Parts: sequence; C-alpha cells; structure tokens
Amino acid sequence: MVLPTDLFPHATDAALKTVEAHQDPQDLVFYAAWFCPSAQRSWITLEEKGIPYQYKEVNPYKKEKHFLDINPKGLVPAVEHQGKALFESLVLCEFFEDAYPTHEPRILPEDPYEKAYARIWIDFVAKALVPGFMRLFMAQGTEKQDAARAELYDSLRTFSAQIKGPYFLGEQFSLVDIVIAPWVTRDVIAAEHRAYNRGDVAAEWKQYAGRVEVRESVLGTKSNPEQYVDVYAPYLKDEAQSEAAKAIRAGRVIP
Amino acid sequence: MVLPTDLFPHATDAALKTVEAHQDPQDLVFYAAWFCPSAQRSWITLEEKGIPYQYKEVNPYKKEKHFLDINPKGLVPAVEHQGKALFESLVLCEFFEDAYPTHEPRILPEDPYEKAYARIWIDFVAKALVPGFMRLFMAQGTEKQDAARAELYDSLRTFSAQIKGPYFLGEQFSLVDIVIAPWVTRDVIAAEHRAYNRGDVAAEWKQYAGRVEVRESVLGTKSNPEQYVDVYAPYLKDEAQSEAAKAIRAGRVIP
Ligand SMILES: N[C@@H](CCC(=O)N[C@@H](CS)C(=O)NCC(=O)O)C(=O)O
Ligand SMILES: N[C@@H](CCC(=O)N[C@@H](CS)C(=O)NCC(=O)O)C(=O)O
Repeated sequence: MVLPTDLFPHATDAALKTVEAHQDPQDLVFYAAWFCPSAQRSWITLEEKGIPYQYKEVNPYKKEKHFLDINPKGLVPAVEHQGKALFESLVLCEFFEDAYPTHEPRILPEDPYEKAYARIWIDFVAKALVPGFMRLFMAQGTEKQDAARAELYDSLRTFSAQIKGPYFLGEQFSLVDIVIAPWVTRDVIAAEHRAYNRGDVAAEWKQYAGRVEVRESVLGTKSNPEQYVDVYAPYLKDEAQSEAAKAIRAGRVIP
Repeated sequence: MVLPTDLFPHATDAALKTVEAHQDPQDLVFYAAWFCPSAQRSWITLEEKGIPYQYKEVNPYKKEKHFLDINPKGLVPAVEHQGKALFESLVLCEFFEDAYPTHEPRILPEDPYEKAYARIWIDFVAKALVPGFMRLFMAQGTEKQDAARAELYDSLRTFSAQIKGPYFLGEQFSLVDIVIAPWVTRDVIAAEHRAYNRGDVAAEWKQYAGRVEVRESVLGTKSNPEQYVDVYAPYLKDEAQSEAAKAIRAGRVIP
C-alpha cells in the first residue's frame, strides 16, 4: 500500500503543463494537491477565469507547519491572497468570483433567484453526491457495494432530472458543474472497481458527464488517470486515513 | 411521548406577535415551523432586513402534498417568491441579501476577503457546531454525554477564539451570528439536561451568546422556552424521527 505521505509528488499530463505555466510569484498563491478533488474545483475556477496565480503543490497528509499556518485544518485547497489566508474549496470559488469581478466568465447567475437555485444544487452535490461517491469507493463486499451504488444512482438521478443542458443550468458553465466535475473525472474508478456505469444512471447523466469532463478547464487540471489509482487504492480497500475517509467511516460530517 | 405530527401547532410569546404581524399576502411567502432552528435563521434575516413577507406555519413532519410541491425534501424553511420556490435556510438567507439589496443591514461583508472569511465560519457552524449540539442532545448515558459535551466544547472554543466582539465579525451583526443564533436560543436544553454551561466553554462564548440571544430579531422569533421542551424531549431520549435525527443516528450527512 502506498502511504499517503509517499504519494506521487506532482501533477502529470495536462495538469503538469498548467502547473508549469503558473510558477511565477503572484498576489494569489494557490496551495493544492494534484490528486485532490476539492482542490480541482478551485483550480478549475481559476483556469476558467484566467486569474493570475502561483501554483504550489502541497502533500496535505504531511501536515507541515508552514501549511498549517495557512489552513489550521491542514486540508487543501487553500490560498494566500496578498498575504492573507483562505481555505475550503467552495469558499475559494466564491472568493475568486467576488475578488476578480472583471474576470469572465461568471460562475454564478446574476439573477438572485437563479443564483439561489444554483446554491440549492451545489448543496446537493456536497450533501448527497460527494459522500455517495466516497461511500461507494469505500464499501466492502458485494452487498454493501450494491447498496451504496443504488443510493448513489438515486441521488445522481435526482440531479440528472434537473440538468437543463448542455450544462446544469443551461448554456452557462457554472459552479454547479465545477463542484461535481472532479467526481466526474474520477468516476472511472467506480466504473472499474464498483460496477458503476454512467448510462445505467440515466442517459442525461451520461451525456452531461461526457460534456463536463472535456471542458478545457477540467482537462487542463487533470493528471494521468493511472496516477489517481494509487490515491484511491486505499479507499477501495477501506484503508484510507484521510480526514474525509475517517469521517465517512465514523459516520461523521466530512470536514 | 408527543408525536411530531402532534406538536404544539403555532408560535407563542414574541414569535407569535411577529407571526401575527405577517399574515397579509405578500410577494414573498415564508414557510416555517415555529420550533425549527433552520427556519429561525431565515426568519431572523427577514426581520433584520424588514423585508415584507407572509408567514405560513407548516408542520414539516406531516409531509403534506402542498408543501412537498414547494420543497420536495419536505423540510422547512422554504419560500415562494413571485410564485417560484426556494429552500435551505442558508440559501434563503443569501437570497434575501441578493434579492432585496436596498434592505439594510447587509448580513455579509462587502469586502471579498472578509466575505470569504465569514463563509469559512458559517461552514464551521454547519459542520461542527450544529451536529455537535444535536449529538449532545441525543447522547445516552453519562459516558457518551461527557464525550459529546467535550467535543462540542472543543468546537465552541475554536469558534470563540475568533469572536471579534461584540458580534463574531465585530460591529456588524452577520450571517455567522444568524446561523448560530437558534442554537444559542436552544442551548438551555443542553444546560438543563446535559450539564452544558456557557461559562465552562469560554468566557468569550458566554458573553457572545448573551449578546446574540437578546438581539431584537432573535428575541422576536423566539417562542416560549417551555414549548421547545416538547420538541426536544424525543431527542433527549434518542427517539426523534426527524430527518436530521435519523441522519445523526445512521452516521450520515444531515440533510
Ligand atoms: N471541505 C474541504 C475538503 C478538503 C479535503 O478534504 N482535502 C483533502 C485532499 S482531497 C486533504 O487535504 N486531505 C488531508 C487529510 O485528510 O489529512 C474542501 O472542500 O476544501
Ligand atoms: N438543511 C436544512 C434543514 C432543515 C430541517 O431539517 N428542518 C426540519 C425542522 S427544524 C424539518 O423540516 N424536519 C422535517 C423532517 O425531518 O421530516 C436547512 O438548513 O434548511
């Protein structure tokens, strides 16, 4: 088993190119881990908006002091913006929207009702879809895997029924798409190890996932799929020791 | 045991006066339950901003068809705004901020960094404090209650260490205060049944809680404390059948 502190140390493929293009010092320092779905959300947002940032790779499992000073929770993603720290993937995405108002595209609708509607579904991704994928990865034995898959499918169908197309809210690629995109990118693991199949969820889900995964910002923050396997192997054996895995196992809120 | 469908049917005391003052039809219909801490958040926001709204009492445990049409999750709070439905307490608070921009006070800072900082702590309330209070209410036996109280104190101390005073962010009464206010209002139940004591948490917490609970909008949405007892009695015996209680018991995400 690869120890989390021994993880492959940096991004590969298209994500590596994006990292290399963002090494110069900037007002905004983005602390991320190449494998982290939460970090990928904030990264996609930065890339969508073309915000100038300096990428710094962190292994969050090491809990190094310099990083704990930035995020006391010790989780990626985090940023330093003009010397001040912020963290939590969703908070960062909204921060980029607010702090760089002239950087197009906007990721939330202008209309207050439409914006609130988007937030309902962002909340749904956090409460139902992300834990659903994680529980499916971690489920051991056919019976538990079948139950976890059925539950995830159920939630994905609820979500899919609301997809306006091409993206969740329609023409606008939005924060709803961004929060789910890293899980679309990683669902191949569920397909290979947990009999998950996009088409079995719903035709709408298959179409939508296919569109989200080829969005330039999503592709540009994606490493070689084989590198993800090392990261998810401990989850598939229910041996992962991340804060999220421990929370899922203990039946607690994912931090 | 009082069945949730038999709950006392309406607000009392100051909250009843507020309900009575909001019976006329308006563009905004606010569906709430007098006892619900989530609903109280959105209600406090409406009262703070002086937004015109019509209050409609719902017993969310009955899952009546007319209400499921508004919120398929069957949870309060929810609103209809010019005929369109929205729900989720936090989404509603932000919606009121966005849809009524001229209604003071603002509940989120204008500055993007300060706003993001507020969101980090709103997230902390959702992930640590609310489940912490609920788990303490539901814990059975001295050992589990002691552990739940210690864990809640720990989270409350993390929060308290960041209180700028008089309110969480300083002078501005904000959404951070609003999301925790209903739990401050209900912590008397923990004090009476779970040996919780504000002063034992931290002097800062005691002072802060004392200030939040007497804010006009908080008092004006508060029913007779004795009425809350019926609602929390099943939680204290770990017999509650709300979606939240079932989730806590099953170690799942609170919906
Ligand atoms: N809620 C956080 C979760 C972040 C998170 O869990 N990051 C993981 C990597 S994907 C991490 O830093 N894990 C370190 C650990 O669990 O110790 C967010 O959305 O930013
Ligand atoms: N996350 C929701 C939670 C709302 C919620 O749990 N409301 C409770 C009353 S406090 C409810 O409607 N319960 C009905 C049920 O559990 O069946 C929010 O913040 O609005």
